Amino acid sequence: MLYWDNNATTATAPEVLEAMLPFLRENFYNPSASYGPAREVRRAMQTAREQVAALVGAEPDEIVFTSGGTEATNTALAGMKSVLTLATEHPATLHTAAGDACPVLTNGLADLPTWKELLPGHDGASFAWANHETGVLQPVHTLAQSAHGAGLRVHADLVQAAGKVPVQLHEHEIDFASLSAHKLHGPKGVGALYIRRGTVMEKPFVTGGDQEDLRRAGTENVPGIIGFGKAAEMALAAAGAYAALASLRDKLVELLRAGGAEVMVNGAAAPRLPHVLNMRVPGVRAEDLLHLLEPAGLLCSAGSACTSSHPSPSHVLLAMGLTDAQARESLRISLSRYTTAEDVEQGAQVFLNALRTLQSAQSPITGPVTVYR
Amino acid sequence: MLYWDNNATTATAPEVLEAMLPFLRENFYNPSASYGPAREVRRAMQTAREQVAALVGAEPDEIVFTSGGTEATNTALAGMKSVLTLATEHPATLHTAAGDACPVLTNGLADLPTWKELLPGHDGASFAWANHETGVLQPVHTLAQSAHGAGLRVHADLVQAAGKVPVQLHEHEIDFASLSAHKLHGPKGVGALYIRRGTVMEKPFVTGGDQEDLRRAGTENVPGIIGFGKAAEMALAAAGAYAALASLRDKLVELLRAGGAEVMVNGAAAPRLPHVLNMRVPGVRAEDLLHLLEPAGLLCSAGSACTSSHPSPSHVLLAMGLTDAQARESLRISLSRYTTAEDVEQGAQVFLNALRTLQSAQSPITGPVTVYR
Repeated sequence: MLYWDNNATTATAPEVLEAMLPFLRENFYNPSASYGPAREVRRAMQTAREQVAALVGAEPDEIVFTSGGTEATNTALAGMKSVLTLATEHPATLHTAAGDACPVLTNGLADLPTWKELLPGHDGASFAWANHETGVLQPVHTLAQSAHGAGLRVHADLVQAAGKVPVQLHEHEIDFASLSAHKLHGPKGVGALYIRRGTVMEKPFVTGGDQEDLRRAGTENVPGIIGFGKAAEMALAAAGAYAALASLRDKLVELLRAGGAEVMVNGAAAPRLPHVLNMRVPGVRAEDLLHLLEPAGLLCSAGSACTSSHPSPSHVLLAMGLTDAQARESLRISLSRYTTAEDVEQGAQVFLNALRTLQSAQSPITGPVTVYR
Repeated sequence: MLYWDNNATTATAPEVLEAMLPFLRENFYNPSASYGPAREVRRAMQTAREQVAALVGAEPDEIVFTSGGTEATNTALAGMKSVLTLATEHPATLHTAAGDACPVLTNGLADLPTWKELLPGHDGASFAWANHETGVLQPVHTLAQSAHGAGLRVHADLVQAAGKVPVQLHEHEIDFASLSAHKLHGPKGVGALYIRRGTVMEKPFVTGGDQEDLRRAGTENVPGIIGFGKAAEMALAAAGAYAALASLRDKLVELLRAGGAEVMVNGAAAPRLPHVLNMRVPGVRAEDLLHLLEPAGLLCSAGSACTSSHPSPSHVLLAMGLTDAQARESLRISLSRYTTAEDVEQGAQVFLNALRTLQSAQSPITGPVTVYR
């Protein structure tokens, strides 16, 4: 099985599970309790906080653990009245922020002159460091600097970028950043919000007990936090493997084209995450391809898992100027640091076979063929 | 080691961990994805939803999974402008709800005439089915009926009660109820909000993707949810064990008194959770006792873990009319369904030894002795 949907979620690394197990067994204590075993749990959580902070060049006290990237984004945006986002943002941002969405260019990058024009009148800015569908890497420094300079508070959605490309948050004028463990081989149900030192958080989003230095209430997901720490440590150590993925991804495109597939890469003209490939073959619907790829052992997706209950075409691709039909032809392949050159060769074959099956069934007379499961 | 702080958190049951493991290993797929393995994950989550619903007499579609009890309570209260609570509520309620807190009687039960007087002018009511410090069981039916009859939406905090005493939510006029897995031998980081069929939720609290039938955004904590389901199933099956705990708890008080301890039970005159004992020995500070109990192998607490960073006396006990000094004498023992008669005998001995050590060190001349770690 080739699992090429790592932007939806990743397999929990065995080392991560190993690190979590003691906290799902004997070290089950509530970290807020006053006895010794609970203090040990607190110390382990502090190590995890250091590991997560190190991944993004932050200090441990700038990291607040949450239940995931979505909660982190909700927390960051809760204190902003009017937020300038990008039209290609994840639903966690678009459905949470009130304000305007700045258009993007056809390569997926923010339209910077328009971004700067739109800043006045907003008190917050929010953009994804890397897009969840295309992997397009935004000009983070410029987006943050311009927004911060105009007096806005700045939130970066790091959910897809953290652990995949180098991130040094202190190099940018970023107040908040959202992280998620399960996108980098950590467990589901845990994430973090970076809150830059000196950034004031009026009120926690989730209120109640005194946990997380009064910044996030509720008994901590200790096993999840420990797993997140380990996953962050591993991702940082594997930075080289991620950098190398770009060549595997490009090799895949090369193999597909060599096999006769007319592959168009969405966002090709922009810097992108090394492991993400959003592409289309004109005239072939992604949905039909997926129906053939799955039984052949290749799992990928036609867009974000978070909106897969909608049959509508990707808002990200439409914002990049694709037509409805072109968006429906688009497929997202997201490799992982465990993907090998052999996987890519095998996957290319599977893809080409599926494509040939589809293309042989359709003709200029019949038009696109719908594959039913 | 006698772990008698089960109201702070519980040990994850081995069967619960076993149920979770496949979802921390091979079944890691994002449940929102469209391929077959993801559908299997969705099916397993549906089973968990049925298990949690069964624990409280609800329908599966009335259960929304959250990151814990605190988030569930935040979600329920987010749609209410002015909430009538009880003065003894958990911080998750008191720090979240804007409105008034109704006083309680010295036995910890709601002052019902005052409750009814205070209802007008509020649009929501929120009370704990069982108190987290004393275990006092409120007159749920009357509280809910009076509030609902006055046009308020009703939230019940079931975090401590669920799985410990029988709960049939459909028998009461309750719109929302909060649940937490880690209080009933499930994992930390997962809870649920019961939303009664027909109760309208204007807007999710955590917004973003389409998860949980559009009622809670964010990739689901699948292993946590599966563990919660198993824990709920086990708690329901163990209902008899919980009922029997009341006699173990009463035996403990009997042994302590037989050993010469002048034990006063807080909330003694009210119906209480079978496994909870909040008590004090006049003239002996709980903090000092705890310092002797821990090295002797008995872990319990002087109040809620969620506020243990405050050195202030329990607001719950003060609301019941205890003095500051009496509140500081009070200790919370919370047994579990795994507690045995031998544990109770052993614990009583440990407690009596600690008490004698303290009492022999203090005299009418020296006054209370402070124990330093």
